[in-house]
Amino acid sequence: MIYENVLSSPDDFDFNIKNLGPSMLKAPGINHQFVSDSDRIAFSSQVHNIFQQIESCNTFPSFEKAGPRQSIFHNPAESRAAIITCGGLCPGLNNVIKGVVRTLEGDYGVKHIDGIRYGYKGLTAEAAHRPFSLNSQAVDQLHTRGGTILGSSRGNQDPKEMVDQLVKNKINLLFCIGGDGTLRGASAIASEIEQRQLPISVIGIPKTIDNDLGFIEKTFGFETSVQVASEIITSAHCEAEGADRGIGIVKVMGRDSGFIAATASLANSVVDFCLIPEIDFQLDGEKGLISALTQKLEHNQHAVIVVAEGAGQRLFNESVQKTDPSGNILKDDIGVFLKDEISSRFSRMNQSVTMKYIDPSYHIRSVKANAADAVFCYLLAEHAVHAGMAGKTDVVIGHWNNFFTHVPIALATQQRRMVDLDGALWKGVISATQQESLL
Amino acid sequence: MIYENVLSSPDDFDFNIKNLGPSMLKAPGINHQFVSDSDRIAFSSQVHNIFQQIESCNTFPSFEKAGPRQSIFHNPAESRAAIITCGGLCPGLNNVIKGVVRTLEGDYGVKHIDGIRYGYKGLTAEAAHRPFSLNSQAVDQLHTRGGTILGSSRGNQDPKEMVDQLVKNKINLLFCIGGDGTLRGASAIASEIEQRQLPISVIGIPKTIDNDLGFIEKTFGFETSVQVASEIITSAHCEAEGADRGIGIVKVMGRDSGFIAATASLANSVVDFCLIPEIDFQLDGEKGLISALTQKLEHNQHAVIVVAEGAGQRLFNESVQKTDPSGNILKDDIGVFLKDEISSRFSRMNQSVTMKYIDPSYHIRSVKANAADAVFCYLLAEHAVHAGMAGKTDVVIGHWNNFFTHVPIALATQQRRMVDLDGALWKGVISATQQESLL
Amino acid sequence: MIYENVLSSPDDFDFNIKNLGPSMLKAPGINHQFVSDSDRIAFSSQVHNIFQQIESCNTFPSFEKAGPRQSIFHNPAESRAAIITCGGLCPGLNNVIKGVVRTLEGDYGVKHIDGIRYGYKGLTAEAAHRPFSLNSQAVDQLHTRGGTILGSSRGNQDPKEMVDQLVKNKINLLFCIGGDGTLRGASAIASEIEQRQLPISVIGIPKTIDNDLGFIEKTFGFETSVQVASEIITSAHCEAEGADRGIGIVKVMGRDSGFIAATASLANSVVDFCLIPEIDFQLDGEKGLISALTQKLEHNQHAVIVVAEGAGQRLFNESVQKTDPSGNILKDDIGVFLKDEISSRFSRMNQSVTMKYIDPSYHIRSVKANAADAVFCYLLAEHAVHAGMAGKTDVVIGHWNNFFTHVPIALATQQRRMVDLDGALWKGVISATQQESLL
Amino acid sequence: MIYENVLSSPDDFDFNIKNLGPSMLKAPGINHQFVSDSDRIAFSSQVHNIFQQIESCNTFPSFEKAGPRQSIFHNPAESRAAIITCGGLCPGLNNVIKGVVRTLEGDYGVKHIDGIRYGYKGLTAEAAHRPFSLNSQAVDQLHTRGGTILGSSRGNQDPKEMVDQLVKNKINLLFCIGGDGTLRGASAIASEIEQRQLPISVIGIPKTIDNDLGFIEKTFGFETSVQVASEIITSAHCEAEGADRGIGIVKVMGRDSGFIAATASLANSVVDFCLIPEIDFQLDGEKGLISALTQKLEHNQHAVIVVAEGAGQRLFNESVQKTDPSGNILKDDIGVFLKDEISSRFSRMNQSVTMKYIDPSYHIRSVKANAADAVFCYLLAEHAVHAGMAGKTDVVIGHWNNFFTHVPIALATQQRRMVDLDGALWKGVISATQQESLL
Repeated sequence: MIYENVLSSPDDFDFNIKNLGPSMLKAPGINHQFVSDSDRIAFSSQVHNIFQQIESCNTFPSFEKAGPRQSIFHNPAESRAAIITCGGLCPGLNNVIKGVVRTLEGDYGVKHIDGIRYGYKGLTAEAAHRPFSLNSQAVDQLHTRGGTILGSSRGNQDPKEMVDQLVKNKINLLFCIGGDGTLRGASAIASEIEQRQLPISVIGIPKTIDNDLGFIEKTFGFETSVQVASEIITSAHCEAEGADRGIGIVKVMGRDSGFIAATASLANSVVDFCLIPEIDFQLDGEKGLISALTQKLEHNQHAVIVVAEGAGQRLFNESVQKTDPSGNILKDDIGVFLKDEISSRFSRMNQSVTMKYIDPSYHIRSVKANAADAVFCYLLAEHAVHAGMAGKTDVVIGHWNNFFTHVPIALATQQRRMVDLDGALWKGVISATQQESLL
Repeated sequence: MIYENVLSSPDDFDFNIKNLGPSMLKAPGINHQFVSDSDRIAFSSQVHNIFQQIESCNTFPSFEKAGPRQSIFHNPAESRAAIITCGGLCPGLNNVIKGVVRTLEGDYGVKHIDGIRYGYKGLTAEAAHRPFSLNSQAVDQLHTRGGTILGSSRGNQDPKEMVDQLVKNKINLLFCIGGDGTLRGASAIASEIEQRQLPISVIGIPKTIDNDLGFIEKTFGFETSVQVASEIITSAHCEAEGADRGIGIVKVMGRDSGFIAATASLANSVVDFCLIPEIDFQLDGEKGLISALTQKLEHNQHAVIVVAEGAGQRLFNESVQKTDPSGNILKDDIGVFLKDEISSRFSRMNQSVTMKYIDPSYHIRSVKANAADAVFCYLLAEHAVHAGMAGKTDVVIGHWNNFFTHVPIALATQQRRMVDLDGALWKGVISATQQESLL
Repeated sequence: MIYENVLSSPDDFDFNIKNLGPSMLKAPGINHQFVSDSDRIAFSSQVHNIFQQIESCNTFPSFEKAGPRQSIFHNPAESRAAIITCGGLCPGLNNVIKGVVRTLEGDYGVKHIDGIRYGYKGLTAEAAHRPFSLNSQAVDQLHTRGGTILGSSRGNQDPKEMVDQLVKNKINLLFCIGGDGTLRGASAIASEIEQRQLPISVIGIPKTIDNDLGFIEKTFGFETSVQVASEIITSAHCEAEGADRGIGIVKVMGRDSGFIAATASLANSVVDFCLIPEIDFQLDGEKGLISALTQKLEHNQHAVIVVAEGAGQRLFNESVQKTDPSGNILKDDIGVFLKDEISSRFSRMNQSVTMKYIDPSYHIRSVKANAADAVFCYLLAEHAVHAGMAGKTDVVIGHWNNFFTHVPIALATQQRRMVDLDGALWKGVISATQQESLL
Repeated sequence: MIYENVLSSPDDFDFNIKNLGPSMLKAPGINHQFVSDSDRIAFSSQVHNIFQQIESCNTFPSFEKAGPRQSIFHNPAESRAAIITCGGLCPGLNNVIKGVVRTLEGDYGVKHIDGIRYGYKGLTAEAAHRPFSLNSQAVDQLHTRGGTILGSSRGNQDPKEMVDQLVKNKINLLFCIGGDGTLRGASAIASEIEQRQLPISVIGIPKTIDNDLGFIEKTFGFETSVQVASEIITSAHCEAEGADRGIGIVKVMGRDSGFIAATASLANSVVDFCLIPEIDFQLDGEKGLISALTQKLEHNQHAVIVVAEGAGQRLFNESVQKTDPSGNILKDDIGVFLKDEISSRFSRMNQSVTMKYIDPSYHIRSVKANAADAVFCYLLAEHAVHAGMAGKTDVVIGHWNNFFTHVPIALATQQRRMVDLDGALWKGVISATQQESLL
């Protein structure tokens, strides 16, 4: 497997800025337990895997552990950092911004921090809006607000042009908060920097509301999203119960992975059908959704369906594939499709149903982070700053087996994490929904 | 004005069940301050109106005051009550059900209370679902849940058939919770009952999430709706701020009256444009929305629009008018229309905008009542029960100048209450949004 | 009755600044429906009261209607306003500040607005903190935060000294947000101003979380408080249910009036005993609380008590009376008293009970205003500004029969509003708690 | 280290019911990925620890992995399960009850499930209340409610008597939800059962709001508690800001470990001082709290303190130690102590401060579980049922490195988990509060 090589060979893979000599500065007197580059976190915590790996091959898949390094590369007094947020909103963006600013200033004494406006667009020569200056006081209340004060945009820009801007503005620390498109952009910037042999660190902070980045077990905003989604499910349940043969459909985020749908369905266990991209389902036939719905309506008079946006794509006629400015494949709208198809099929059977369809995506994306996400964002930001100051680059901050880690951007964006259909989460969903008949 | 006659002539208008002799039973020893049928609440509390009315005409517009009567018509020991919920969901339905049950049982000792399933459909001969029995214990936790445990449906049924069912099931107290379609249905049932000279009271409990019933200054669920709508506005604001030239649109309920849109825009004063049915607005031209939006985006980089579902109907080509099963005229979807039209106009001007559209209607309708609505529902239900036990019929329970009132159903459904464009609420919205240029 | 004179004689009572000529400036072109000083709101909306008043006496109790006047007294271009918040926190303080600033600036064009720090202390010669400057942008997000950005303090200061400061700082519009101590202070300032014949308006904005100011039917923050209190009651209920013979006690605000306790008990109708200052109750004896509790525990295994802080003061040995810096009489702590006395009495009877006591006062006081309060605060602030600009003084902005009013400070602070034990609210509480046996 | 033996020697430690032959029944056709008793989860995921363990000793510390077993011990058709909740309330108790019932019934077909009333008291011969019967329908809405429908109590009972009751009622599966007192009680019951060679499984489900059970990295209710605590911190912050030299103190749960205090302080990073049992602090002296507070008040005019209930116990005169009925040592009340001591010290220095003290413990304990906890509770319950049906006993269900585990009760209750003062959480708190001077 490709990941083994990337994960396991400290000699082959090295996040440190190259060709510019080692980190030699001493970290300021922050009261830290320093972490060494040789500290690593095992990929698997299952004992039989561990022994197998040790016995059968000469690699032991593991991640470099994140945390403060004793020697730092960038001189805080001369550093200028920039923060950028890209892609769709996600609860916690402002918390991450606050954490990066507080840690840069409080732990390292970095004085110059720029907030780049509206994503990578703000790093172009003709950017419509100038960066604004960030400091601890300016970010003090940020953790109480959803969205991002920096603004965001989708799409990438020319890496050469962006590096020119970094150089022009004397930025030596760039923090890119975004999903896999953004991270690939960050990687391209880092490559351009390496080619020019510039002393600039590019640190990725992973943002995906779907929680589906590879080799990163949890991304920020996910728990908040599940919380809000589970409240919306209560609404759909009330609407469904409120009508004879009422059907409530909630469409939630989840382009390739159904984590939000599955977790919210288990959190608010009134859901009858949870449809995610990882499973196949049919509308028609003995094991089809219509048949299962018919039974449910006969017994319960109502039903609740939670569907991830990327579920059931096979049901569409896939002649043309569209993409958004970030290059994400645009999915057909399964929520509207289900609403229409279910209605028309019951109508053809001369059976009345009352459909209520809720799409809470923009609402979920823009609420403020809950407490768990707020904590996670703060710690993630801290570890990003530690990585940056230590001179790491082309790296994204991950979380694995309870430790923050350094993950190569190439690895994190290589494949999406999916719901394990044999794992506890999905088994829990099956048990709570009793939807075995579908599968 | 027609309402003056209806409101002001106690001799001409009488809510008591007719032709069956007066209420002679003594109310049970509930510790009540009794209200007399001659207690009335002035229509206007403005002194110059009051003096004008006294001087210029021989009517003094006023409402009959609701409350417990010393003599009751129905014998609690022999009574059987039924409760019905009709139309769309509205926060507080379950609270009203709880209040009716608790007051019937606790204050009057009525033992038999039926919950009719799924609106007027449940009162037909071939109703698919039997009523279920309600008592204090069964409704104990109802105030913690949105929706309606009875279920609801839209549309009316044949009054004769429904009266047959009441007679068959020995119901002498019918509580109909619903909007103006439902109330007209209740009135039709009451007429049929009067014609048959039956001792059955029909009491309407007004439910309209739009808060627009005539001669009723407040209906339940409204404050909760405004609360949730104002939270959604925060989301739209975050989404709008999160993009360069971001526009957030929230569509809220309000078919003919913009109370939710106006009140929520004032509650969460980040709104730039509040569009309600009571105002005219243009898309194009100097005073048009596009022009105003252009200015706002230039100064602020983002804008938030709140639009009531019934706003801007003139912008549509009104060839065909559609209605729903309750007879409500189906409006064209102004939210989707605005989203599409604004996008295409800016696109034609070669100006990028980022649109985020949120339609939270079903979510708002199905949340549980907040504390203020919970209190209002309980008191409303109490007054409905007092009216029913006293032998009133064909009446809806209103609220006016801080008192609960008896309002003729014909009056309440005669015309809709609108936002007063010269009143404090709308002036406040203009002040908060600074949208004068539109008007 | 004293209030009749104050309320009803426009000739005797006049809020306009005296001895300085009439208001002659034309209000700016704000799109307002102007209100005249002769517009008045009837004290009673009950028809029989109205006719009685007209027939039996030559006064007709009513309030001056608040709202924008066509002629204003203060020249906006030369005006300098100051805002002050005093006393304990109350949800909505920041909303009122925002509303005053937005209306002064947006509707009248006043440019200089000072935020006085920490109550009347900030108006003294040796104030520790200088006022800060307020404008629309500075207050933009204020409606999202509880507390008061100005800070507050208890206690009054020398009116002469405060007027000296107003003069020194060229303040001609003073907005005092506070309870009856604060309002009396404002009145003293207004008197001193009148004596010196200065063109300074002093406008009171009523703040009392207890909702108990005389002749003002609703004050801001009340609905929010009831909302939070009712959520805490759920917690007390869970704690009570969670133990065999569990008793949950919640103490809420309400020094002289039990509005919060009564309204929250009706909103969350799981309360078994609601104890307010307006009722007498005993611990012991046949009709005592202990006896009623004993029965409740036998039937239900648990009980929930909501007690207003001013309830049951007769149960204390009233040898010494203490007051706080604002002159409010300090009540003995009925919550702790009940917890201890109930425990010890059951213990003496050899009956175990499990007591859980919750005092959420500071939490309730400092949450942000809910939507209904936010709207109310904005409108209240607008009307305060209109009154100030029109040259009114020594007046507090009230709300009565759905209109904003001008109430003489002397009247509003003359006596407290109490829960009407014969009114719908308290009857509802009795019905919901079934606590008749206590009374 | 003692734990190594317990953790690592599958031959020495075995959770299966002894002396009664192996599990031979086939698990019902639930669509599960079965787990074997030899599947184990490594204690450490840090690579250098793993290699050290492998090289230096012949044990490899690990936990038995929880999950469904292919062979089960108890025959579902003949099984009778009992569920018991003990100790203080914790968000999620009802969710666990729902999960156990749903899994027993849905996955295994167990029909008889008893809810024992009020903790271990309900398992005594003279229990005041009979168990009630639980099934899927009865628990359907349980996830929407805080508290425990079973009721709880503190304190243990005679194991012999409780086993007698189990035998009498034919219970062969006992699920004990509780903290370390409860778990020790469960272990005593299991020992008595082993001695009598009865085929009864006793499964512990760990409940500690403090999140401090040994060898279990997360317990349910913790995230919800942090969420509510962080909201209360906002209130304390508003109160502190609202007064000149205002100090807000929030006391939260945390008898021996400061997880809630630390995590909430990081989640809502407005906290100035976070005091937990793991750190020492002084009131007086150069590095004392008073000195640090003085500086903070001079710069910021206000300060927020979050203190865990078990912090600063050294500051008390520890003459007598008191315990509660469960044997927990009763701590002196550090919250009240701090409030009083800080006030009196500043008063002695003739410096005014305004103290606001909030103790939200009962409120936090009784709210309903948030979405993350709801999911965790459901999965925890599932794994408890799998363990029970497989014939495990004297075991508590843990969570470690992302897997559910079987932990010997003796191990989980051996020592408390503490906040690692060198770990990311506490370093984050130091960074966010800037309270280094204290330490």
